[in-house]
Amino acid sequence: MTSISISEGSLFGLANLPYGVYSVPGQDPRVGVRLGEHVVDLALLLGDDVFAAGSLNPFMAQGHERWVEVRGAITERIQRDVPDEAVHELRDVTLHLPFEVADYVDFYASEHHAANLGRLFRPEAAEPLMPNWKHLPVGYHGRSSSIVVSGTEIVRPSGQRKGPGDEVPVFGPSVRLDIEAELGFVVGTGNAMGTSIPADEAERHIFGVVLFNDWSARDIQAWEYVPLGPNLGKSFASTVSPWVVPLLALEAARVPTPTQEPAVLPYLQMQRPWGLDIAVEVEWNGQVVSRPPYAAMYWSPAQMLAHQTVNGAPSRTGDLFASGTISGPAKDQRGAFIELTWGGTEPVEVNGAPRTFLEDGDEIVLSATAPGADGARIGFGEARGRIVAKA
Amino acid sequence: MTSISISEGSLFGLANLPYGVYSVPGQDPRVGVRLGEHVVDLALLLGDDVFAAGSLNPFMAQGHERWVEVRGAITERIQRDVPDEAVHELRDVTLHLPFEVADYVDFYASEHHAANLGRLFRPEAAEPLMPNWKHLPVGYHGRSSSIVVSGTEIVRPSGQRKGPGDEVPVFGPSVRLDIEAELGFVVGTGNAMGTSIPADEAERHIFGVVLFNDWSARDIQAWEYVPLGPNLGKSFASTVSPWVVPLLALEAARVPTPTQEPAVLPYLQMQRPWGLDIAVEVEWNGQVVSRPPYAAMYWSPAQMLAHQTVNGAPSRTGDLFASGTISGPAKDQRGAFIELTWGGTEPVEVNGAPRTFLEDGDEIVLSATAPGADGARIGFGEARGRIVAKA
Repeated sequence: MTSISISEGSLFGLANLPYGVYSVPGQDPRVGVRLGEHVVDLALLLGDDVFAAGSLNPFMAQGHERWVEVRGAITERIQRDVPDEAVHELRDVTLHLPFEVADYVDFYASEHHAANLGRLFRPEAAEPLMPNWKHLPVGYHGRSSSIVVSGTEIVRPSGQRKGPGDEVPVFGPSVRLDIEAELGFVVGTGNAMGTSIPADEAERHIFGVVLFNDWSARDIQAWEYVPLGPNLGKSFASTVSPWVVPLLALEAARVPTPTQEPAVLPYLQMQRPWGLDIAVEVEWNGQVVSRPPYAAMYWSPAQMLAHQTVNGAPSRTGDLFASGTISGPAKDQRGAFIELTWGGTEPVEVNGAPRTFLEDGDEIVLSATAPGADGARIGFGEARGRIVAKA
Repeated sequence: MTSISISEGSLFGLANLPYGVYSVPGQDPRVGVRLGEHVVDLALLLGDDVFAAGSLNPFMAQGHERWVEVRGAITERIQRDVPDEAVHELRDVTLHLPFEVADYVDFYASEHHAANLGRLFRPEAAEPLMPNWKHLPVGYHGRSSSIVVSGTEIVRPSGQRKGPGDEVPVFGPSVRLDIEAELGFVVGTGNAMGTSIPADEAERHIFGVVLFNDWSARDIQAWEYVPLGPNLGKSFASTVSPWVVPLLALEAARVPTPTQEPAVLPYLQMQRPWGLDIAVEVEWNGQVVSRPPYAAMYWSPAQMLAHQTVNGAPSRTGDLFASGTISGPAKDQRGAFIELTWGGTEPVEVNGAPRTFLEDGDEIVLSATAPGADGARIGFGEARGRIVAKA
């Protein structure tokens, strides 16, 4: 039996216990929980083969009461007797995409982001927000197949673009490659077709939270997106963090969402506070360039899930819905470079050089922390990606 | 051993051989091929357990050469010795969704449809088509979880709408429920992330074709769709036909696509004719109300797949991409009721009554036929759905 040392102030102490999928050489991927700088194999810790799977989906499908029970069992066992063979050093393992993504929907839940993009994409419009924006959480479906785990290289996408000076569209690698710093919400159990998930029941369906970088080719997006929305400007890649922070670990992070005015329709009303006081950081080649505050988001994850299912659309274990870019009111709180550099017209200084959009070799790391139980602080790990040219 | 009788002129003779997934009471779903009014179990016919699966995905993943080989083997074995236990009467079996849907993308490939909708949704615009429309096949990702097999009841969706006379949005069951008569293309084998599928290689990746009814709530769609595209107006349900007609069966249906002017970028150019002379019919409560001609479609499925992957987005076995509404130039060739009734202002007569959008109890059946080998005609079966009120 092993006892696991956790350094004082670790973001991965008992208040966190995020789930991931790891492997060691010669072994298939399995579910583990992170504790400090270690990964503990859950099938061995708890003697339950649901964790011997290569994704969290079988466990997530067991439902909310089981999630509560397992979190309790981990907390108890991990302080008592951990079999030696269940413990790995984090540096010795490979981390994988922690869940199989079913449907993926990207929302647009930050008022600051939506207003900034409205001003940039539709400068002629009197109002930066569309008339529907404060009545429903606007969202669209994205591509599941290109959602990859932190560390995966991001190949610069090619596509059509047509700048203001171009008579006809041109084809080539994107020249306005951007990030979107978001959170992703992982659905553990869904709803049957023809039924809906009320906002107040969302916490029984949402298993956990990941960091999410929705890489965006702004030049491809600007040309393609009317009238049916973004497609190839987004579909080439999105990066998620390898650790799924349980929603159960975020009780201390709950804060009220900003006042919603006009009042929302009844199906979007919530009894509990569903804002999340999660502090996100965006690092560009090692330098922090933005600190988007998740607490500033207008629409909550409970509202997103309630909206997404109100028409009877079924959701499933492994569904992922993302918040859309997290931007706060201040300039250095903007979670996309198109906002941070105001469409490329106001470069930011990165390691001494003026920068606007991403160049080959650039590396972006998203990270985040939040208040946890008993005064602890908990971490989300990181969503890391480096841009490479197409071979 | 059985010999299977096929009536003269059957749409399901040896020129067709569509694949589906069927079950009989007490047995798990398995792959079968339709021959006349029979279903032949393929695992038993060919002695290959890849067909004992509940979806076509494992077989599709084996790739194009194997698809050619299996089609040859079926043709040969079915005329020689069919084990008794492999043959079922079509009326005795239950048909299931024939493949597991990975990512689903809906295109907008009919110029007539796009122009009609432009006139209806943006009457103030000088040009009905957006500037990008003739340069790229516009498309967006849709929801995979709500794709259901023919015969599944369609629950009328609820959602927000805001009519011209409404001061604020209202919530309730859609009052402008519509259809979109489309074809769906099933991807058998995909491409790795960071690579693309050239238009001229698309036929090695597209396994087959289904009928596709993209049910649409126009009131929900009109309010939600700016700026990120359709979401809840579409995500509640789409119906596919249970038989996947192999692309290999459609060689005789190939025709040139309409002239594309301006010329398309090189990645969208094709050497072979990729138009498909498929005649679609839309039945409303038993009465044919429209006959959309697939041959009139501007963008081809090869171009859709080439476009969808040109940014390096991976596609996978089970991906489905749909054509968008098939509309021809004539009024009675329009594949959506919003066009056919011009936004509800010009009712059509169905069984003697003037009709615009769908009422509870209405049943829609899509069907289609195409030229097959040796002068035969082949059928697509049907995509059937009846509207029911939410319980």
